[in-house]
Amino acid sequence: MNKIKKIGVFTSGGDSPGMNAAIRAVVRTALFYDIQVLGIRRGYEGMINGEFVEMDRKSVANIIQRGGTILKTARSMAFMTPEGRKEAYDQLKGAEIDALIAIGGDGTFTGAKIFGEEYNFPILGLPGTIDNDLFGTDFTIGYDTSINTVTDAIDKIRDTAESHDRLFIVEVMGRDCGLIALRSGIGVGAESIMIPEMKTDMAALFNRLEMGRKDKSSKILIVAEGEGDSGGAFEIADKIKLKFPQYDTRVSVLGHIQRGGKPTCMDRVLASRLAVAAVENLMTGKKGKMVGLIHGKIAFTPFDLAIKHHVEINLDLLKIVEILSL
Amino acid sequence: MNKIKKIGVFTSGGDSPGMNAAIRAVVRTALFYDIQVLGIRRGYEGMINGEFVEMDRKSVANIIQRGGTILKTARSMAFMTPEGRKEAYDQLKGAEIDALIAIGGDGTFTGAKIFGEEYNFPILGLPGTIDNDLFGTDFTIGYDTSINTVTDAIDKIRDTAESHDRLFIVEVMGRDCGLIALRSGIGVGAESIMIPEMKTDMAALFNRLEMGRKDKSSKILIVAEGEGDSGGAFEIADKIKLKFPQYDTRVSVLGHIQRGGKPTCMDRVLASRLAVAAVENLMTGKKGKMVGLIHGKIAFTPFDLAIKHHVEINLDLLKIVEILSL
Amino acid sequence: MNKIKKIGVFTSGGDSPGMNAAIRAVVRTALFYDIQVLGIRRGYEGMINGEFVEMDRKSVANIIQRGGTILKTARSMAFMTPEGRKEAYDQLKGAEIDALIAIGGDGTFTGAKIFGEEYNFPILGLPGTIDNDLFGTDFTIGYDTSINTVTDAIDKIRDTAESHDRLFIVEVMGRDCGLIALRSGIGVGAESIMIPEMKTDMAALFNRLEMGRKDKSSKILIVAEGEGDSGGAFEIADKIKLKFPQYDTRVSVLGHIQRGGKPTCMDRVLASRLAVAAVENLMTGKKGKMVGLIHGKIAFTPFDLAIKHHVEINLDLLKIVEILSL
Amino acid sequence: MNKIKKIGVFTSGGDSPGMNAAIRAVVRTALFYDIQVLGIRRGYEGMINGEFVEMDRKSVANIIQRGGTILKTARSMAFMTPEGRKEAYDQLKGAEIDALIAIGGDGTFTGAKIFGEEYNFPILGLPGTIDNDLFGTDFTIGYDTSINTVTDAIDKIRDTAESHDRLFIVEVMGRDCGLIALRSGIGVGAESIMIPEMKTDMAALFNRLEMGRKDKSSKILIVAEGEGDSGGAFEIADKIKLKFPQYDTRVSVLGHIQRGGKPTCMDRVLASRLAVAAVENLMTGKKGKMVGLIHGKIAFTPFDLAIKHHVEINLDLLKIVEILSL
Repeated sequence: MNKIKKIGVFTSGGDSPGMNAAIRAVVRTALFYDIQVLGIRRGYEGMINGEFVEMDRKSVANIIQRGGTILKTARSMAFMTPEGRKEAYDQLKGAEIDALIAIGGDGTFTGAKIFGEEYNFPILGLPGTIDNDLFGTDFTIGYDTSINTVTDAIDKIRDTAESHDRLFIVEVMGRDCGLIALRSGIGVGAESIMIPEMKTDMAALFNRLEMGRKDKSSKILIVAEGEGDSGGAFEIADKIKLKFPQYDTRVSVLGHIQRGGKPTCMDRVLASRLAVAAVENLMTGKKGKMVGLIHGKIAFTPFDLAIKHHVEINLDLLKIVEILSL
Repeated sequence: MNKIKKIGVFTSGGDSPGMNAAIRAVVRTALFYDIQVLGIRRGYEGMINGEFVEMDRKSVANIIQRGGTILKTARSMAFMTPEGRKEAYDQLKGAEIDALIAIGGDGTFTGAKIFGEEYNFPILGLPGTIDNDLFGTDFTIGYDTSINTVTDAIDKIRDTAESHDRLFIVEVMGRDCGLIALRSGIGVGAESIMIPEMKTDMAALFNRLEMGRKDKSSKILIVAEGEGDSGGAFEIADKIKLKFPQYDTRVSVLGHIQRGGKPTCMDRVLASRLAVAAVENLMTGKKGKMVGLIHGKIAFTPFDLAIKHHVEINLDLLKIVEILSL
Repeated sequence: MNKIKKIGVFTSGGDSPGMNAAIRAVVRTALFYDIQVLGIRRGYEGMINGEFVEMDRKSVANIIQRGGTILKTARSMAFMTPEGRKEAYDQLKGAEIDALIAIGGDGTFTGAKIFGEEYNFPILGLPGTIDNDLFGTDFTIGYDTSINTVTDAIDKIRDTAESHDRLFIVEVMGRDCGLIALRSGIGVGAESIMIPEMKTDMAALFNRLEMGRKDKSSKILIVAEGEGDSGGAFEIADKIKLKFPQYDTRVSVLGHIQRGGKPTCMDRVLASRLAVAAVENLMTGKKGKMVGLIHGKIAFTPFDLAIKHHVEINLDLLKIVEILSL
Repeated sequence: MNKIKKIGVFTSGGDSPGMNAAIRAVVRTALFYDIQVLGIRRGYEGMINGEFVEMDRKSVANIIQRGGTILKTARSMAFMTPEGRKEAYDQLKGAEIDALIAIGGDGTFTGAKIFGEEYNFPILGLPGTIDNDLFGTDFTIGYDTSINTVTDAIDKIRDTAESHDRLFIVEVMGRDCGLIALRSGIGVGAESIMIPEMKTDMAALFNRLEMGRKDKSSKILIVAEGEGDSGGAFEIADKIKLKFPQYDTRVSVLGHIQRGGKPTCMDRVLASRLAVAAVENLMTGKKGKMVGLIHGKIAFTPFDLAIKHHVEINLDLLKIVEILSL
């Protein structure tokens, strides 16, 4: 193992709040250990195109609190081809980059795994995604901010729901993973949560709605984007309207606000801890792994494990929804 | 004119942040002047059904900061019929209510006008709507909160837009009125604003997008719900995608979050001022009018004027968008 | 062990955000299992005075998002005496309360331990304090909200610090425990953190300030309330002014805003999970323990352990401050 | 009058939220009219030192939502001397700056008046201060944000006040002007407001506290920084403690958070409108005036009038506090 003199850092895939805090911490930690840092713009696409920017302490000043990513992000078709990766490798070599820190989700780590093995290139990954769907870390960077954004939005919607005695079906992000729906659903006191991991039982839902109605004037149902069996928020709304024409049923799709905004304190701290650990462990030769936090301790998970093992839904949490929404 | 001994207060139509601050101020002002207050739940519908609640100082404690309306709101078909209004009148008489304060928008004031004339019943109105579309007041209760909610949401969306170099088309509320779009558009630095009051000029928009592109990596266009010529946010998006396939174009519909949430300080103060004036002027015999604030002074506008005259769009503001978004 | 038919729930000590979410979840879970619930107002003081309120589903509707505690809280001198506790016991018996759930911090649990042993009374505790200073749970209810409030406040202060090139010393809560200072300090990118658990090394601080100055125009130092060696925020400011008269040094004491506000999603979920577990475990005979969450799992810690063992400061986090603030 | 080719823009005095929105709008408007813009850093101090930065569209991208001022601000002793102003003039000439836009409060405009007359230099001013204490504009840039920050903070404090039945005395900014106290006081439903413009009547306050106590469990009193007669927040607290030892009386000084944070939509729009008008009117030869907004219309007020005429407190608003807090 050679001493690392210069690392590259980039963000890739969907942006998530806290990515900037992670970039800042990567840059400052590297400089602390006398390692140079280049920022790679637009993820793998920028790597192929040699979009490198020298990073010093100042280039990451006053960004810890900002959403999005100052390095920008993109999805790259070219990097999926051997030719694209060859170009990327040549660019890295040309810039004398010895190692990489990749901030992103499963797409990012898939690329990192292939590239790292193909060229024996040291890469560590930081879990930057709002979905919390990676194995090997209790929380991903951005998840906490996202569930707070959802909670705030639904708190607002509830004002209207209560005032008009309405039933709201709120669609939140989560194509393959119901964790945003689950925690924010408990956070807002939702009547019911529908997620990709569980078959939606419309009969049971109707039953709950029938039972509860006298006791409570408004209702919030949360549907994760990826809910499949029942056709998503709008189809579920149609079914409810048919069964309960007396309800004033509405749909609200929260959409892209869920990715943005100031990161919460937890996301900033998580990003900072993981980034410090990533730089320090690149220095000791670790590679091909995602850096996560499990039970308060830094943990390393090979890229293929991080992305393949789906996170299990805590059934206790689902039961809590049921108990508390009655 | 007889001395007023007991007033009824209600909210009607779509809820808006600050309605609770208005209810609180009506109740406390009435009590200050030794007038009893009944809260009428669910607007005209509750009036017909006699849903009256005695209000004391405590019943409005700790609500000034809450969104929605503790008196709930509803739309009433029955009140549009003479029979419905007769029932409402009988209920009011039965409860010895001498006068009413109606908090709502144009639907509310239409009902108030008809009923007030039919039964010679003293009613004053407070402008409670997020749309700011009433003649006779510089601002309606809820508008300021709503444009801040929109601004916050688009600030979040911009994080993602900037990170991905995307063009976002954001649909905001305003079926007949572009004022939410206009002020929030300036507030977020939007590239363009499309509103019901102005024909959307797609050619000019394309032109702007073409010119500006090199200088700026992401773009926000704001479309009011009621934009008609070009088919609304989704159709505009389709046209842009066709013309500029290289853009990553997305639509986000902000939806019901725009009605809820803690009122801003301005909305709380406005609600408080108007409510105090309403009670004090009911006492001196004023009726059939909306209480507004024009140039910092309390102003009274007959209900029919308040709802018929559409608010003019300040063309200077539209020009400001054009100048600043370049 | 007899079947529990009626429980009492109360909050005691300093209020913390999420206490209402905990009360709601205790009430709804108990009702779910056909157990009656009385709310005890004003903590032990109200217990002695028999301030009991029947709780149903509705009495906890729409409170999950509210700061403070609807049951109010107080400190009780009387409960520290055997006579006071005797009165409390008589009141509980009179109201046929079989078991208690106490929400609070170390003072609360000290009382619970003594009373529970004295009268062999089943009590479980929920950790409700912003300080996160209890052994037996990774986080206390309110801590996450509090560090976000601090982070938001310091983000605002930094705007001014940056604009004026000022050095700000910000005092945050934490009389015996530096955990609020530590995490919020990482979250805002503070230059230095001074906490009760560590001797403040003024020479080292001066050194850091001297080194860093050219590279950075403004500085944030965070001092926990309980910092002792150097006399707290104002004395530290005086020392800095003496040593660095060229700095524009200011002090800001955040104060009581740190206890209030809407709970974050995490605090609402934590409160809900712990409360469900508390009721379910009271039913199976558990008592004399605090219910916490350790590594994602419900954990029970005897009251005396929960309050006596001081939480250890994670030294890695302190090192992170040092690395990242350079 | 010569055509203006290059303007300088600077911020001076205390920072206020919306200054960045004003800088952005000055820069973009100037460029729109083919005028060059230099940013002058650190106000008059930077003018003397020639701290000029070329501004293009990109240098003001993505700042509309940020608190503070990217141009930084400072107070300048040197500019109070004729020698200092001579140096400033030479610097401006050297950089070929034809005209200035000054963003700040009374100190800023005092300097602008003297300098503008001394050197016949075209200057227009924008009211950037949280205090709203300038004559010639209904609102200053930053005021709306500030009263919302205060309102949010006191909403949090009230959670604790209600939970503990406490009386809180909250000190807000306003050394010479009670407008922050007044509007935020109505916004939070304060019991009483003490401001520099009114003699604090302790006897009347005691009376109110005595009357109200049974009806309400917690109280918020707001004291502007500049309240003089009664010695400010801490002395008022001492007097209340002496008179009402049974109250749990606390003081909270909000401090510097009041200057920072994201500007509200209103402040962003106000800043944008005034800045566009300032550039357009510099072009037509206007000078020596502050640009304000009066009753929705752009208005120009000579610098000496803007700073000398103290804003009158609307006594109706004070009466509203009295009516509503009962």
